[in-house]
Amino acid sequence: MNLQELVEKSTNISYTYCVTPEIYYSFQRCSNDYNPLHTDLAFANTKGFKSTVMYGNILNAFISHFVGMLLPTREVMIHAQDINFNRPVYLNDIIELDACIDKVYASVNVIKYKLRFSRINEDKEEIVAKAHVQVGLID
Amino acid sequence: MNLQELVEKSTNISYTYCVTPEIYYSFQRCSNDYNPLHTDLAFANTKGFKSTVMYGNILNAFISHFVGMLLPTREVMIHAQDINFNRPVYLNDIIELDACIDKVYASVNVIKYKLRFSRINEDKEEIVAKAHVQVGLID
Repeated sequence: MNLQELVEKSTNISYTYCVTPEIYYSFQRCSNDYNPLHTDLAFANTKGFKSTVMYGNILNAFISHFVGMLLPTREVMIHAQDINFNRPVYLNDIIELDACIDKVYASVNVIKYKLRFSRINEDKEEIVAKAHVQVGLID
Repeated sequence: MNLQELVEKSTNISYTYCVTPEIYYSFQRCSNDYNPLHTDLAFANTKGFKSTVMYGNILNAFISHFVGMLLPTREVMIHAQDINFNRPVYLNDIIELDACIDKVYASVNVIKYKLRFSRINEDKEEIVAKAHVQVGLID
């Protein structure tokens, strides 16, 4: 697939993730991060959170899935990414990812996507994070 | 711990990670990213890589560990982060993380760290990624 086709076929992509216990525990095993904010309910409560807070980098793992599995070609690789966390995410939250194209760098076969993560399982839909990912087409 | 103490005690932090099979497979389970670049040796070879390429976001999981476990207080939370991937990382690579303070936003209890990931298991030490993470002190 060439860059022009990739641009046309990935203008807007949405996908719904659930932060399942399996995702939580596999991230914990991967990162070895046992900070009490993520593991100790009493600690999280003391800090003003209703429950233990999910690892923000689980959303970055979703970005890995977005690039590797949702784009219309497998021949892609992440060059760079950034994320801003706006609100805490909790276990079993349903997170919608909405992606659109931010910039196209045609001369180097790179596309920058703008991503928005929203929690959609509560009455009020809320943005939990905003991100960008720069993806290179590999051939 | 107050911000000033955190600044003094986290001026320079280094830590060595190994990208073990357990880390690779737990990230795969977490992300559900089975892109052939990460899973299919023949595909990775065709694209010019000596082996399947590790998920770049494994380094973001290391940043989660850095913040949650290596900083001298547990009372921290990631606000934002960014990363640039410079070179592919392979299974069993030994990756050194070197962190230093980039900026201090004293009025909002936030520190921005600058991070460098280097592969140290080959003759030539090489930077594989550069990143930043903005961390808030929670009380």
